Amino acid sequence: MRFTINRETLVSNVQDVMKAVSSRTTIPILTGIKIVASDEGITLTGSDSDISIECFIPIQEDDRQNVEISKMGSIVLQARFFADIVKKLPGETVEMEVLDSLTTRIRSGSSEFNLNGLDPEEYPRLPEVEGTEGFSIQADLLKSIIRQTVFAVSTSETRPVLTGVNWQLEEGRLTCTATDSHRLAMRNVTIESKDGDLNFSNIVIPGKSLSELAKIIDDTDDLIEIIVAENQILFKAKQLLFFSRLLDGNYPDTSKLVPNESKTTITVSAKQMLQAIDRASVLAREGRNNVVKLVSQDNDLMEISSNSPEIGKVFEQVEAQSYEGEELKISFSAKYVMDALRAMDSSEVLISFTGAMRPFLIRPIEGDSILQLILPVRTY
Amino acid sequence: MRFTINRETLVSNVQDVMKAVSSRTTIPILTGIKIVASDEGITLTGSDSDISIECFIPIQEDDRQNVEISKMGSIVLQARFFADIVKKLPGETVEMEVLDSLTTRIRSGSSEFNLNGLDPEEYPRLPEVEGTEGFSIQADLLKSIIRQTVFAVSTSETRPVLTGVNWQLEEGRLTCTATDSHRLAMRNVTIESKDGDLNFSNIVIPGKSLSELAKIIDDTDDLIEIIVAENQILFKAKQLLFFSRLLDGNYPDTSKLVPNESKTTITVSAKQMLQAIDRASVLAREGRNNVVKLVSQDNDLMEISSNSPEIGKVFEQVEAQSYEGEELKISFSAKYVMDALRAMDSSEVLISFTGAMRPFLIRPIEGDSILQLILPVRTY
Repeated sequence: MRFTINRETLVSNVQDVMKAVSSRTTIPILTGIKIVASDEGITLTGSDSDISIECFIPIQEDDRQNVEISKMGSIVLQARFFADIVKKLPGETVEMEVLDSLTTRIRSGSSEFNLNGLDPEEYPRLPEVEGTEGFSIQADLLKSIIRQTVFAVSTSETRPVLTGVNWQLEEGRLTCTATDSHRLAMRNVTIESKDGDLNFSNIVIPGKSLSELAKIIDDTDDLIEIIVAENQILFKAKQLLFFSRLLDGNYPDTSKLVPNESKTTITVSAKQMLQAIDRASVLAREGRNNVVKLVSQDNDLMEISSNSPEIGKVFEQVEAQSYEGEELKISFSAKYVMDALRAMDSSEVLISFTGAMRPFLIRPIEGDSILQLILPVRTY
Repeated sequence: MRFTINRETLVSNVQDVMKAVSSRTTIPILTGIKIVASDEGITLTGSDSDISIECFIPIQEDDRQNVEISKMGSIVLQARFFADIVKKLPGETVEMEVLDSLTTRIRSGSSEFNLNGLDPEEYPRLPEVEGTEGFSIQADLLKSIIRQTVFAVSTSETRPVLTGVNWQLEEGRLTCTATDSHRLAMRNVTIESKDGDLNFSNIVIPGKSLSELAKIIDDTDDLIEIIVAENQILFKAKQLLFFSRLLDGNYPDTSKLVPNESKTTITVSAKQMLQAIDRASVLAREGRNNVVKLVSQDNDLMEISSNSPEIGKVFEQVEAQSYEGEELKISFSAKYVMDALRAMDSSEVLISFTGAMRPFLIRPIEGDSILQLILPVRTY
């Protein structure tokens, strides 16, 4: 293997595949990045066996020469050192050559590294998912879907299936649901571009995979192709393949959790509500498990309060844009409601309560594209 | 105590005094910020007993009304909560009032906090250093002096006096020295404004105090007055007092460490040298204790290299602007030389060596305002 590559292009692609490389892997070869020089360009691969990322750098792109390949071949180099080195190299281009016995020479400007490589034949193959049916979503929409659901996955391994986000595709409608059994986040989108009548219901993608994916994809309207296979899902961008394993187990049926009726419905500014709860929770963070109280008052006013005898008390007033239904007296986790409010894109939100001990819902004023459900905390 | 204060002014002053408050103190009252309302304005004090910071907010400043005081008095409030609260309050102003039994009401916009206060009478008094002779330095110069020396203090408590920076004032010349016994950083400045013929030699200021001071003072040409007392030093800016205790013990005489002669002298770009050593140390960080080699070659060229058998080798070439004297073969800690090069403000530096086992010096091309000394590592 021998090629010369534009340094900045190499750096940004290495940073992308690094997102899949873990230093805590038990499989030594996975501490490396696989580099393959073919007659079309350079392919970089990183993996922690849960997530695998493959980046492709074409020889030429938009009239710009990225790579000049003089000898095809492949090598695996220690990811941590390789990423640090290419970031710091002084030249505009980097020359890489595999010498004898896997030693790889990296030259740029006045700098020369000789790194001990690993045998590329030992690097695990990526899952075969091509040929399977798929559908597409715009990159920026995919990022929103992830941001609006992934925070609600469980961080406990007691029920591993809850550490993932459930994706269901039915009649062209994708529903993404996450819950840690104290709260639930759900996002709906209509899929326009898909193969045939693709439907699935029990796909559970690890939260960590989705968080890494959201970091790696750009905020553009480029289409991301999504292919679901046996126990893998593949997100396919222009020059990037992102594989994640799927979680085993049956995702619980969450549709029965959502109340159909409500006793109190308020419309409120998401930002005002968020900031008032944030302040009320300053004192609650200590002893009281981050729980704040909401009590309705006269004239569409609500009081949000918290009391930590050792530190002090706080009272916040929030004015609802509209208030319909019964009086309200409810306690909840400030963190859960703040997470939910941050996930709402609208400036005004609808909050509907069905009593102090029943889950309440936060939704946009119009449409049902987002639903955030939160279980209250018993204090009265 | 009762007053109304501009919120932004309060926030920035609270952030300043917070730099002295430690959550790990064993003296409960020092977890608080002392607030005093007098007929001139508001004084805030924070302390961890090593460092004490006092900020003063005058009633009026540059035609702007900062504070309106309706009742003088004082209180101590839990620093962590108070700082978090004022940062998040919604209004442009904050109203503070001590109610009965030390409870303090903080109101702003639609928000109201009742914090349990602590007895201000229990708060320790600040050291008395006023009336003592002092001298002044421009704030930006003081920041430079700190930045160019404090990194070289010892992090080990084996010889506590080495965890501080030694300040000597003799005939109007201030010399600041820090050493961890492997390297030494020294900075000289001429003091123009001082009282009488003030001289001192065994003043040792804790490195941590100086780092905090550098964070808190602005990069302006305002004069900072410096007053040295028995076991305290006071830095006095316009509306800020910064006290630090001094370290006990005799600071070692470091003047004998600096070689008078040199066998090899090179002039080199500080940036090129820094970047080459940075790359050479990427592999050295692992097994070899961060040691790199420098070997002179023909034509003013120097090779900087490192070899970690398990990972690989690296060779860097740096061209000296001038090279005089004997051939060179020396090993040193990459970190120490990088720290020293970063502290140099000049783009070109003079490095003088007196053999592979003798300390070498890094200085600016002209003048003796900065001197960085580094002990080599024996490898040949």
